[in-house]
Amino acid sequence: MAELGAILTLLDLAAAVAFAATGALAASRKQLDILGFAWLAVATGVGGGTVRDLLLGLDVFWVVAPAPLVACLLTAAVMHFVAPMMESRYRYILVFDAVGMALVTVAGAARAVDAGAGALVAVVMGVFTASVGGIIRDTLAQEPSVILRREIYVAAAALGAAVFVVLDGIMEGRAWAAVLAFAAAFGLRAAALAFGWTLPVWRARPGRDVGRR
Amino acid sequence: MAELGAILTLLDLAAAVAFAATGALAASRKQLDILGFAWLAVATGVGGGTVRDLLLGLDVFWVVAPAPLVACLLTAAVMHFVAPMMESRYRYILVFDAVGMALVTVAGAARAVDAGAGALVAVVMGVFTASVGGIIRDTLAQEPSVILRREIYVAAAALGAAVFVVLDGIMEGRAWAAVLAFAAAFGLRAAALAFGWTLPVWRARPGRDVGRR
Amino acid sequence: MAELGAILTLLDLAAAVAFAATGALAASRKQLDILGFAWLAVATGVGGGTVRDLLLGLDVFWVVAPAPLVACLLTAAVMHFVAPMMESRYRYILVFDAVGMALVTVAGAARAVDAGAGALVAVVMGVFTASVGGIIRDTLAQEPSVILRREIYVAAAALGAAVFVVLDGIMEGRAWAAVLAFAAAFGLRAAALAFGWTLPVWRARPGRDVGRR
Repeated sequence: MAELGAILTLLDLAAAVAFAATGALAASRKQLDILGFAWLAVATGVGGGTVRDLLLGLDVFWVVAPAPLVACLLTAAVMHFVAPMMESRYRYILVFDAVGMALVTVAGAARAVDAGAGALVAVVMGVFTASVGGIIRDTLAQEPSVILRREIYVAAAALGAAVFVVLDGIMEGRAWAAVLAFAAAFGLRAAALAFGWTLPVWRARPGRDVGRR
Repeated sequence: MAELGAILTLLDLAAAVAFAATGALAASRKQLDILGFAWLAVATGVGGGTVRDLLLGLDVFWVVAPAPLVACLLTAAVMHFVAPMMESRYRYILVFDAVGMALVTVAGAARAVDAGAGALVAVVMGVFTASVGGIIRDTLAQEPSVILRREIYVAAAALGAAVFVVLDGIMEGRAWAAVLAFAAAFGLRAAALAFGWTLPVWRARPGRDVGRR
Repeated sequence: MAELGAILTLLDLAAAVAFAATGALAASRKQLDILGFAWLAVATGVGGGTVRDLLLGLDVFWVVAPAPLVACLLTAAVMHFVAPMMESRYRYILVFDAVGMALVTVAGAARAVDAGAGALVAVVMGVFTASVGGIIRDTLAQEPSVILRREIYVAAAALGAAVFVVLDGIMEGRAWAAVLAFAAAFGLRAAALAFGWTLPVWRARPGRDVGRR
């Protein structure tokens, strides 16, 4: 159990840093001041896990133990000075976002399993907590949110969460389930970005109703 | 009490399906893939009830018993194939949204009453949980949210919630209070859409300040 | 302790009225009907404190004792008739928003301290609950949210929360800590608006990547 708790604490911390980096990069693209960096980094970094904890009726993780909060603030401070020197910040956002998404997916599914949720709820929890941070970031930065993007995103989180729930049910040792689920979610998202993978879309008949209110 | 619980469970389920249909139709208008359908259907379908349960300090209903989640996912799957063949999807969104709004209003007010809230809090809870799902859907689909719409919406939810709270206080048998409250909320919203009913607006003096930052 | 509770109850009430006024003014700028006023006033008025209570695991303050709810609704009703006669409503929004922000900052930090949170969590809680109401208002009214604004905002909330946490730790009598923290947050925000104060921004190199997706 100590091992499980430590893994989840580490996952939450790593996910917070990865997502905080995307929030800070979004702040940089909007040319915000350092407190705008901090705000977006914290909201993006801990937003998903916060919603997860509220839905599961748990104490909010960063209120109980503020290490992820400190990590988000440090990430924001570093990024405030580093980001303006980076080329193609949007590409870095995508990379960090993919890492964060995969980490949060695993952490979300694992916390849901530990809280006694069934497999379906655990997968949905993984998917939702993986997307909430990015949605907060994109909504506030006035960009289209992840669920509107063409390249596979939600499917990658769903795959990772499902892999975790299945492997966690049949394997000894949660660490491997977490690693493989992370690899599945990150791998699918990275491949989608690299190769432009999308899921098929049932098209409306041409010219019919699209964009009409 | 068993009867009451069963009614609320049914209300939550029916409301989830109606709102999930609107989320899926919004996904169709945005030409999302099937997981985009699922995401918007679930968020719209259970969003209002989720916020209600969090505000009232209850366990989140779909985490405890995932039937509404399954219903949202099935609705998304069906809609993914059916919606592109529908004409005037926006009209269907309005119809399903009116049904969902009326159902969620009643469920929100009822859960608030059961949780010991006073009449005013129960009415506000009905109104807020009725609008949260649609707000999530419209914000993510980058459309103006329900509260900005001209035709009576919030007033219909407020009427339905008030009817429920009053009748539930004076009548035997909650089912009739629920049915009449649903009819009041749905009827007013439907009439507003059919006849273009709006509430009067105190106008700003011409040319003064509107749209100015 | 009774004194502490009374101060916090008053803070929540005053903050709700100030933020509700900004929500109602935003509704007026959008020419909404009276229920649109009520909706935005309540969401803006109690939104920040609601998120604070959820994050801290407390009962939501207006569900327990609905006085702030009544105050928001009364504010909306008065504003519905008064706002259209006001000139430069946007300026009033800024003033009420600064008052509300400073009040909510203090209340947020104080509740966090009382709930046993450490200094950093208390400051972050003050900052977040100060900005949530305005974010809801601005997102729904389709305006850029506070964290995107140039003039110091988040920094004022952070200063006020930090002043409160420090003074509350070293002084007898919480009332003075609250007053001085309010003065710090409101004063910095008011000065920023009056004199156009901003924090320095590390600029991206010219023409590089800004606005690129």
